[in-house]
Amino acid sequence: MFRHQKELQFEVKVERPDPQLAKHIQELLGGQFGEMSVMMQYLFQGWNCRGNEKYKDMLMDIGTEEIGHVEMLCSLICQLLDGASPEQQAEAAKDPTLAAIMGGINPQHLIVSGLGATPKDSQGVPWNAGYIVASGNLLADMRANLNAESQGRLQVARIYHMTKDEGVRATFRKMLARDRYHQYQWMAAISELEEKNGVVVPASFPPEAEKESQPHALEFWDLSEGEESSTGLWATGSAPDGTGDFVYLPDPAPQGNIPDPIVPAPELHHDLDGQATNK
Amino acid sequence: MFRHQKELQFEVKVERPDPQLAKHIQELLGGQFGEMSVMMQYLFQGWNCRGNEKYKDMLMDIGTEEIGHVEMLCSLICQLLDGASPEQQAEAAKDPTLAAIMGGINPQHLIVSGLGATPKDSQGVPWNAGYIVASGNLLADMRANLNAESQGRLQVARIYHMTKDEGVRATFRKMLARDRYHQYQWMAAISELEEKNGVVVPASFPPEAEKESQPHALEFWDLSEGEESSTGLWATGSAPDGTGDFVYLPDPAPQGNIPDPIVPAPELHHDLDGQATNK
Amino acid sequence: MFRHQKELQFEVKVERPDPQLAKHIQELLGGQFGEMSVMMQYLFQGWNCRGNEKYKDMLMDIGTEEIGHVEMLCSLICQLLDGASPEQQAEAAKDPTLAAIMGGINPQHLIVSGLGATPKDSQGVPWNAGYIVASGNLLADMRANLNAESQGRLQVARIYHMTKDEGVRATFRKMLARDRYHQYQWMAAISELEEKNGVVVPASFPPEAEKESQPHALEFWDLSEGEESSTGLWATGSAPDGTGDFVYLPDPAPQGNIPDPIVPAPELHHDLDGQATNK
Amino acid sequence: MFRHQKELQFEVKVERPDPQLAKHIQELLGGQFGEMSVMMQYLFQGWNCRGNEKYKDMLMDIGTEEIGHVEMLCSLICQLLDGASPEQQAEAAKDPTLAAIMGGINPQHLIVSGLGATPKDSQGVPWNAGYIVASGNLLADMRANLNAESQGRLQVARIYHMTKDEGVRATFRKMLARDRYHQYQWMAAISELEEKNGVVVPASFPPEAEKESQPHALEFWDLSEGEESSTGLWATGSAPDGTGDFVYLPDPAPQGNIPDPIVPAPELHHDLDGQATNK
Amino acid sequence: MFRHQKELQFEVKVERPDPQLAKHIQELLGGQFGEMSVMMQYLFQGWNCRGNEKYKDMLMDIGTEEIGHVEMLCSLICQLLDGASPEQQAEAAKDPTLAAIMGGINPQHLIVSGLGATPKDSQGVPWNAGYIVASGNLLADMRANLNAESQGRLQVARIYHMTKDEGVRATFRKMLARDRYHQYQWMAAISELEEKNGVVVPASFPPEAEKESQPHALEFWDLSEGEESSTGLWATGSAPDGTGDFVYLPDPAPQGNIPDPIVPAPELHHDLDGQATNK
Amino acid sequence: MFRHQKELQFEVKVERPDPQLAKHIQELLGGQFGEMSVMMQYLFQGWNCRGNEKYKDMLMDIGTEEIGHVEMLCSLICQLLDGASPEQQAEAAKDPTLAAIMGGINPQHLIVSGLGATPKDSQGVPWNAGYIVASGNLLADMRANLNAESQGRLQVARIYHMTKDEGVRATFRKMLARDRYHQYQWMAAISELEEKNGVVVPASFPPEAEKESQPHALEFWDLSEGEESSTGLWATGSAPDGTGDFVYLPDPAPQGNIPDPIVPAPELHHDLDGQATNK
Repeated sequence: MFRHQKELQFEVKVERPDPQLAKHIQELLGGQFGEMSVMMQYLFQGWNCRGNEKYKDMLMDIGTEEIGHVEMLCSLICQLLDGASPEQQAEAAKDPTLAAIMGGINPQHLIVSGLGATPKDSQGVPWNAGYIVASGNLLADMRANLNAESQGRLQVARIYHMTKDEGVRATFRKMLARDRYHQYQWMAAISELEEKNGVVVPASFPPEAEKESQPHALEFWDLSEGEESSTGLWATGSAPDGTGDFVYLPDPAPQGNIPDPIVPAPELHHDLDGQATNK
Repeated sequence: MFRHQKELQFEVKVERPDPQLAKHIQELLGGQFGEMSVMMQYLFQGWNCRGNEKYKDMLMDIGTEEIGHVEMLCSLICQLLDGASPEQQAEAAKDPTLAAIMGGINPQHLIVSGLGATPKDSQGVPWNAGYIVASGNLLADMRANLNAESQGRLQVARIYHMTKDEGVRATFRKMLARDRYHQYQWMAAISELEEKNGVVVPASFPPEAEKESQPHALEFWDLSEGEESSTGLWATGSAPDGTGDFVYLPDPAPQGNIPDPIVPAPELHHDLDGQATNK
Repeated sequence: MFRHQKELQFEVKVERPDPQLAKHIQELLGGQFGEMSVMMQYLFQGWNCRGNEKYKDMLMDIGTEEIGHVEMLCSLICQLLDGASPEQQAEAAKDPTLAAIMGGINPQHLIVSGLGATPKDSQGVPWNAGYIVASGNLLADMRANLNAESQGRLQVARIYHMTKDEGVRATFRKMLARDRYHQYQWMAAISELEEKNGVVVPASFPPEAEKESQPHALEFWDLSEGEESSTGLWATGSAPDGTGDFVYLPDPAPQGNIPDPIVPAPELHHDLDGQATNK
Repeated sequence: MFRHQKELQFEVKVERPDPQLAKHIQELLGGQFGEMSVMMQYLFQGWNCRGNEKYKDMLMDIGTEEIGHVEMLCSLICQLLDGASPEQQAEAAKDPTLAAIMGGINPQHLIVSGLGATPKDSQGVPWNAGYIVASGNLLADMRANLNAESQGRLQVARIYHMTKDEGVRATFRKMLARDRYHQYQWMAAISELEEKNGVVVPASFPPEAEKESQPHALEFWDLSEGEESSTGLWATGSAPDGTGDFVYLPDPAPQGNIPDPIVPAPELHHDLDGQATNK
Repeated sequence: MFRHQKELQFEVKVERPDPQLAKHIQELLGGQFGEMSVMMQYLFQGWNCRGNEKYKDMLMDIGTEEIGHVEMLCSLICQLLDGASPEQQAEAAKDPTLAAIMGGINPQHLIVSGLGATPKDSQGVPWNAGYIVASGNLLADMRANLNAESQGRLQVARIYHMTKDEGVRATFRKMLARDRYHQYQWMAAISELEEKNGVVVPASFPPEAEKESQPHALEFWDLSEGEESSTGLWATGSAPDGTGDFVYLPDPAPQGNIPDPIVPAPELHHDLDGQATNK
Repeated sequence: MFRHQKELQFEVKVERPDPQLAKHIQELLGGQFGEMSVMMQYLFQGWNCRGNEKYKDMLMDIGTEEIGHVEMLCSLICQLLDGASPEQQAEAAKDPTLAAIMGGINPQHLIVSGLGATPKDSQGVPWNAGYIVASGNLLADMRANLNAESQGRLQVARIYHMTKDEGVRATFRKMLARDRYHQYQWMAAISELEEKNGVVVPASFPPEAEKESQPHALEFWDLSEGEESSTGLWATGSAPDGTGDFVYLPDPAPQGNIPDPIVPAPELHHDLDGQATNK
């Protein structure tokens, strides 16, 4: 069960409205790697967690924090939209410097939400649950989380340069710090888990089946012209778990057959030769 | 530019048709972490890569390999659907053991694709590009790739137990090996990049702004009842980049204000008190 | 800012696993009118609320409660999936009565989530934000909420009959009670708001424009053969706000023109007569 | 079966082209609460209606009217796009006042539809059937319809202020009038149905189960800090159907357990302790 | 404006309920090439049609007919769902032959629509407007229509074999006949248009630009191993408009450059060498 | 299996950056009829092809070519985005002629992809597999392909006029030529197939069922007021396969019944009269 308190986790106070920026910040709220994604991803991972109380508690801590980040971004967007009514926009249109900022508004911020934040990205695409994952395998999911915080922090950093508003920037600096911590956090969890089970996900696949496939688990297939890729650690070093050395195949040959599927029955209506005049 | 050769990368030869399994394997083809996702993700990362020839070449090598993995799965699914015409299904329905396997067919495999693979997941949801990312930041994207290969290999391992067909299992073992290599590969690339730029994405955010936010970059906020989370490396250790020690906040207080957005103009029609009888 | 406590709002304890039911209950979690929808809808309405502290607080109360309902359903689904591993399913397949229940599992509950709940509906379609609304107009949004609780409670009532599991049914009775209260709650709020502003949304549209359109605001257009519709209150009574009596038009004639759009310029390449200079 | 006549239901005649406005009006055509939504919602409710001839006829009347509203909006958008070819836009770009209007065009209106309306919202998101509902329960669906007409009319009213074009405004006034009537209509139908069956959806859930859950059907759970919500009718009054008085719980305690799901079998590959070295 | 009459275009009368078949037939209603698609595609093409009264009238004729086809399929699905309440299903489960048919029900037909048709495909994916096109170019759109009727008729033919119900089959035969006519119709329209403007879409692209690109307009690039493709009419014949003979390139070489995009500015945070310690 | 070579199929070299144009060109990459669609459509058709080696090889040839077209467009978009960092945009904003071009950037090109191409259309909607088809019936699919190349070439032609950049235009001319060839190619394949099997898809539906439905396969139903449609080849000529002459029905009467579905059981909770035992 959850409870809400009215104060925001961190201060959100913009210097002046900027509807165009509000449109861009929607990416951080309802985009693929926005706060809705990490909120839902961590909560579902926590709710589905089985047999790992320490991790479950941790996931619920951070998932609950992220609901508050969605809340902060809604407040930020609402403030940036303040005073962007059609009449005020018409007024602003007379001043060229204001015109661009006001005219860059997302029309749905006017028509649909009445100056409120929307659960969508910067292009108006609704958030969907295809962005998130909760697989039950902790190492896999912590990697998903580290990726999400990396992509998310990158986006905040980029949008940071798109405004000079010191209020917005102060909020972003708080988010950047938390996203940095969250990257640390998932790295620490990943270290713990890799220490225990090894680096490959899943760790528990039957070893004898692993044996047969071992050679292919160390090969780099050079399928794009040029051999620049031969100088990377992935081509020249050893597997991180010490199971062997990588092999660079500069001109790999296919090992499989040419597919030859069976001709389907006439009632599938492929209309192949001899099928057209049917029973 | 690309070229195609007719042989599959690895042998694909099933023992017997199994339409229900074909339905399940669609997850590995057109699901969130299926082969279509890694194929498109690596290709877009390669095509968008700027100023890193070694990585670009590597991304094109593996992206090109993945097109061939989509091809292998299509062949696998086609074979599992062989002979699943409506008449053959009606015949099979008389034998209870066959009935379940034949009756578990995805109806679109009959009606829409005529016993061919579809670009959809195991529940029939079409693949969409919201599953993938190509951010331009290599470390962020390699983390996305490591996550994708972890989730993908986990799914192959799970579905491995859902069949006894040795032909299918042999194909899966090849895929498990390649997914293992690809995990190694992204780990190796991540090591190189972290060595160079540090572990936080992005590395290049202005250091003076980092300073202000430094305290919050080390705090764990305990927002879910219970302190099991206090025993993890994320709460007790140091930041992976040595910038400080983590701080566990057992009862954190919000640091922000209570939001108080401005009442919108009447032409937004919020119908607040005094707005209802309009100009 | 939010906080989480570990206990569920209401007891969730199923009698026995039932993967097929778990699949069906996903509708109540991640479907169009599932708990994810009301949770996100009320939270966004609360976060975007301007100038109505009483309503904002109320929306945050109920939105926060709904996060806990999503949590309850995740727990319910996890319990219904207990013990549904592939090996256990193979075992169950030998017993016809168990076979149907175990075999009716959503394959993604095995392959993707490892026996955890997914943010999707009963057919595997991911939840998306196109299901919800937060318009800023309180009366409009309370009507959306009353609709959501009506549809949601209807779905719980229907699925109630699809199981005899007393643990599941007890949980559903709690949800039915809360959904009943929430219907009362939105009705009460609607009464307050209609009392203040009138029954039409929005209330604040300029009255002089209303005057011109008044006749059409009272007409029923009978455009489907048959006059059964003429006996309803909408055809025979007065407008709820007393602005006039309804008029039933049994054979209404169109009042508009035949559209005659302008022929587009050649560079739009409609290839009309005389434009195809290049054949 | 349906028939079409060429005249529009109401006159549509714009004063001058305005591609930017055309882009915005797409919201009213293909958005979540646009005319495509009400058209498809009423038609599906009518087609699925069982055992209520009066309501079925009424739903078919209004659903058929709404096809004509989609038609009107297509005509409106086509007119607003007249003369917006690339060459004409380049010409307009020389005049600053024209430039904004012409440059604000949705690029798909040029590239994809050749100056025609598209079945999408103002941000280019395709209409999808996840926006609509036809549940079979008339009271639930009439509430969905009242909500749709409320949100839809609100959007028309807002966009009304975004143009001074008297032709467009005249069309909008017709639509506002019809949306007003349609709100009346659903209110009247709701009154009839509530009168007959009571106010709670569904009405027919077994009474004995209702009894057990009765207390929770009257409680307001105050889960967000602050008690402003205690002053509303939902906290202080009686249930609309007179089944009891509301109870305000200022500090509600959870009544459920702490979930403790079963550790899954190794072949799900959660990689828990002791699972990593597998059979 | 539209009108509705109560009779269906063709008789719809099933012999007995079959919920599993109802689920499959959803593909023909709300799938990619279902009746909703052709209905919306023809209507939008008609509404957007400029300067071609004959074609516009024809598009409105057939688009209006297709609304009636959606109606027929809703009636068909409702009849197939008759009597599929949970209690009746439980009863049926005792008879193995009934069990499969009743148990194969789409759960949303129970939970969401109460035995009504849904605007979704056979897998439960909601219909969306990304399935249709109305480009303004008549020849392009007639080809889209011919494709839609070909795919749609193919699907009806396939599903025809999945039932022995003579009532369902009779309805399908009517649909097959209409889909056949509609294929004829689009072929006839295509003939007219190709006769007038030539076979290439668009016909009106500037001839001088065509000249430069002429050689590449006749080349077949053999990029997949094997030369079976060299024996088709596309490799050995002449262009249908007589502009030249096809050329088969057995081993084509790329004619472009190796892309070498510019290294992005540091504030994009690609974290390339030398960017990590930022201003 | 596939291989990649570094050179592009055709030269791509823009004259100068133009972020607004980059946004528009996304339509040709990730839109409904963009290069991603034809690439995936041809590859899936090739992979699923059964019993037609000549066609399979041809589909793989052209599908492989289309991967290279996606690559070319990514290169084109990257070049158009060169130098569009926030700081460079701020600089450009001082020059009105540059301001429009730089300001028209898709915000995701900055925030999400860091100046890279995205797998989305010009409005930011992610590509999805609902755009493509691989039915197994060759004639049906060739018609889908001819449609895709027609719509695609039309879009390239339209966007051609939206830029004066000679580098971009040269690339487009290459694409227009290839799209022209691909139209020829599908026409040639269609001719071959129609010659063999007849013009109706599918050809193999049982002839005796065809007989019963023959009259309806020749009728034009005039359901939209006005008889302009009576003058087309579809109303006045013969069926393309000579099976009869078309018949124009100027005032067609419905031939079906009025649907009368069965009242559902109480546990579906339609709340019909007499069902609401609990009010």
